[in-house]
Amino acid sequence: MTVADTTAWWSTAITRTAPGEIELRGYPIEELIGKLDFVSAIWLLTRGSLPTGTQSKLLEAALVASVDHGPQAPSIASARMAATCGVGLNSAMANGINVLGDVHGGAGQQCVALLNDLVDTAARDERDLASIAAEVVADYRSRKAFVPGFGHRFHPRDPRRDPLLALVEEAVEAGELAGDHLRAGLAVEAALKPPMNIDGITAIIYAELGIAPELARGYFVLARSVGILAHAWEETGTGRRVKGPLPPPLLADYTGEQRRAYP
Amino acid sequence: MTVADTTAWWSTAITRTAPGEIELRGYPIEELIGKLDFVSAIWLLTRGSLPTGTQSKLLEAALVASVDHGPQAPSIASARMAATCGVGLNSAMANGINVLGDVHGGAGQQCVALLNDLVDTAARDERDLASIAAEVVADYRSRKAFVPGFGHRFHPRDPRRDPLLALVEEAVEAGELAGDHLRAGLAVEAALKPPMNIDGITAIIYAELGIAPELARGYFVLARSVGILAHAWEETGTGRRVKGPLPPPLLADYTGEQRRAYP
Amino acid sequence: MTVADTTAWWSTAITRTAPGEIELRGYPIEELIGKLDFVSAIWLLTRGSLPTGTQSKLLEAALVASVDHGPQAPSIASARMAATCGVGLNSAMANGINVLGDVHGGAGQQCVALLNDLVDTAARDERDLASIAAEVVADYRSRKAFVPGFGHRFHPRDPRRDPLLALVEEAVEAGELAGDHLRAGLAVEAALKPPMNIDGITAIIYAELGIAPELARGYFVLARSVGILAHAWEETGTGRRVKGPLPPPLLADYTGEQRRAYP
Amino acid sequence: MTVADTTAWWSTAITRTAPGEIELRGYPIEELIGKLDFVSAIWLLTRGSLPTGTQSKLLEAALVASVDHGPQAPSIASARMAATCGVGLNSAMANGINVLGDVHGGAGQQCVALLNDLVDTAARDERDLASIAAEVVADYRSRKAFVPGFGHRFHPRDPRRDPLLALVEEAVEAGELAGDHLRAGLAVEAALKPPMNIDGITAIIYAELGIAPELARGYFVLARSVGILAHAWEETGTGRRVKGPLPPPLLADYTGEQRRAYP
Repeated sequence: MTVADTTAWWSTAITRTAPGEIELRGYPIEELIGKLDFVSAIWLLTRGSLPTGTQSKLLEAALVASVDHGPQAPSIASARMAATCGVGLNSAMANGINVLGDVHGGAGQQCVALLNDLVDTAARDERDLASIAAEVVADYRSRKAFVPGFGHRFHPRDPRRDPLLALVEEAVEAGELAGDHLRAGLAVEAALKPPMNIDGITAIIYAELGIAPELARGYFVLARSVGILAHAWEETGTGRRVKGPLPPPLLADYTGEQRRAYP
Repeated sequence: MTVADTTAWWSTAITRTAPGEIELRGYPIEELIGKLDFVSAIWLLTRGSLPTGTQSKLLEAALVASVDHGPQAPSIASARMAATCGVGLNSAMANGINVLGDVHGGAGQQCVALLNDLVDTAARDERDLASIAAEVVADYRSRKAFVPGFGHRFHPRDPRRDPLLALVEEAVEAGELAGDHLRAGLAVEAALKPPMNIDGITAIIYAELGIAPELARGYFVLARSVGILAHAWEETGTGRRVKGPLPPPLLADYTGEQRRAYP
Repeated sequence: MTVADTTAWWSTAITRTAPGEIELRGYPIEELIGKLDFVSAIWLLTRGSLPTGTQSKLLEAALVASVDHGPQAPSIASARMAATCGVGLNSAMANGINVLGDVHGGAGQQCVALLNDLVDTAARDERDLASIAAEVVADYRSRKAFVPGFGHRFHPRDPRRDPLLALVEEAVEAGELAGDHLRAGLAVEAALKPPMNIDGITAIIYAELGIAPELARGYFVLARSVGILAHAWEETGTGRRVKGPLPPPLLADYTGEQRRAYP
Repeated sequence: MTVADTTAWWSTAITRTAPGEIELRGYPIEELIGKLDFVSAIWLLTRGSLPTGTQSKLLEAALVASVDHGPQAPSIASARMAATCGVGLNSAMANGINVLGDVHGGAGQQCVALLNDLVDTAARDERDLASIAAEVVADYRSRKAFVPGFGHRFHPRDPRRDPLLALVEEAVEAGELAGDHLRAGLAVEAALKPPMNIDGITAIIYAELGIAPELARGYFVLARSVGILAHAWEETGTGRRVKGPLPPPLLADYTGEQRRAYP
């Protein structure tokens, strides 16, 4: 082993730095500042090249639509509580982001994978999407599982569905997107009935844009980080210290063993 | 205590949700999607109202300039290692963000506070910024402390300084910014000699925009989250498992007690 | 909904508090202090009752054996880097613990599940463990997957195996443990050849003690938290600031796009 | 730079590993397993040598006393919510630990520092502790600040105080501890009136044992990790998904802008 092995161990194709120089994916940073918008920077860093106008516009809409859904979410509540415990805003944000796991933040990723499967199956087996979607829905129902990206425990109809869907349809009509994943998503919706939610419609966007399922989760995390920051900062402004889930003097119920003597 | 006390305990002025409805700072989300850009959404959620064009443009430039500085940074290295350990991208990002603490991610926040102090002192004592800056620099020097936002251990001149500074100067000349914090920052730079770095020039932007020091850290965290995601995702693509800081079979040096028998 | 619903939402059977009173699983804390040892407290809180002497002794041995394996591990390296970034020791520890995920810290949990499966299969199908183990090993080999808990990329023979195994065998001989999971583990080892590692032998202990797979991971996390704290604290003592994976001025290799102009 | 610089960058005096060998602070791990108790392992790793019986006993009592205080604490609530979000127990624990910051988990550390100051001042200025304590208390009162380690917002008298204090007094009487920090703590309590709480009495223990303030926080984190694990695991057992702070359909109050049209 040589020292070159240790620098190769940390090699990257994202950013090159040298004294006085920073290049992002090859572009000198001084040429980007003031010209490149933030969403295109997100695309550039994560995907390696600059987005087209349609790509940037759709990613932007998906991100804006996902910024927040209020303090009932454990991600937001975790960040707000952390902000009262004597850690920095960064640590409060970390706690909020950390709980965007498979169950709380993973439906979009799972839906991208599902849409990819549907499109691949349709192409491989030369079948129509409606029948494949019906099979998939029947399978989920037999397992009493939720189809990721469809239905919402709170919104009968997610208000983010229609405007995002309109943007996708517009891009498909303009020939900017292939439309396969859009059709797959609509086929599932038709078979399932509960309309697609924010995770479903953004999954269509991410899948149409060729974004891998796991990276789609990453984009959702970036978007929700905005709400997490906003809530942590709002909580900071209250001056509360050590905020728990219930206002004092309320106590959680105790349901365990009665008082007993230590042997 | 009533149930109303528990919902009041979690009250927020950021987002209102009702079945089928989501409003961000009062704006129905369906009106924002496709129209509001992501940076303006960040401003809206964290500051409560829509930004002007200048405000949005400057925040955008500050964010883009801050997205990444390569895998030497512990925030990036932490996220890359985490991505190989069998946790989700969200958890990898959380680890990166969590270390953007006072020393690694706090210089911008500290510099905003410093600039605010200089401007306040100049106004209160009717003194010129040059003499106040000279005093501040002398004070830091006597304590052998770094002035936050100035000098860089790697870049003799940070390539992000000039283009960001040009944007601020342009906005001041156009009467869109007051310029007090710009002048304060330049006064410190003149007194100190090592030029301002990314933390210093973005601190000028944040201070001119009236952003509180701690929230400025929050914005930096949002920006660097992009690099953190990009690196975690790149590392995921390598397929490595349980990546440590050194390539195997290299081992950290052991400098402790020689082998000894347990009594 | 009433306020009682909100306190019930947070109900617990672990700890009862009232002004001047704290009971852990029913035992007044003042009776435990100075009498209950720490490992028994871990058992009491997580399992609901006091352990027998054998249970406590075996859990203690498993915990002590798992405290550390040096700074090459990403969990330890993450905590050490965090300790230089201006966050508290608690946050440094959180980062270390957070990466003990499925790949870095999950082998023990997976091995407990595997041993449970083997024992259940043997009982249900009235088969001998050797043939079941041979099938399992063949299955893993066909998938080119590692059998969790066996083999070690660094130790030809894990020095923690023999002393822990001796403790288990002793307890089985004394009739304190049933021994089924021990026999299952030895059957896998015999079929596989690479000897069991720390994850495998502690999995035997946890499985023999009736500890659920996921909780077994929790115990490993508690144990490794000791090493994580020790390393974070040692790093704090160096006074380093913003420690990356490579000593400056070393830089990670850049393997990406050559410098290109922004269009 | 050579490869030796990179292995030196990660050097440690805690653990030595070689193929087939693991030594903790010089002791071969196979000699420790089954003999060394877990609390002594904590001491060994963090302090470098084996504890005396008194040291181990006092640290054990401090740890046991600190394991849990119920789900109202944000650390516990954070871990419980995380456990419902589709992340591993390790990540749930990380979130709980991460909020043990200066305000939620730092009082013990601050109290150790305060006791050290009192003892140092008494020695340096040859003054009695009572008058120094009175001054300190008056200073905190004038700043309307809480003296860390004294009083409790829930317990008029913390039930953990007396049994821990008795153990310290016993060790002082036996000549095992110097007793200076005990006397300092009692002097503050006498001057302040609200009795010391768990942070105050464990701070006396840690200070008497010569443990640095920040490491004292680390020990508290280790202890509370037990409660964090127990609660995360209990929550896992409920099968809840995406648990927020309020039971559905309760919503946080919205106190912000009325609905308004996007311009």
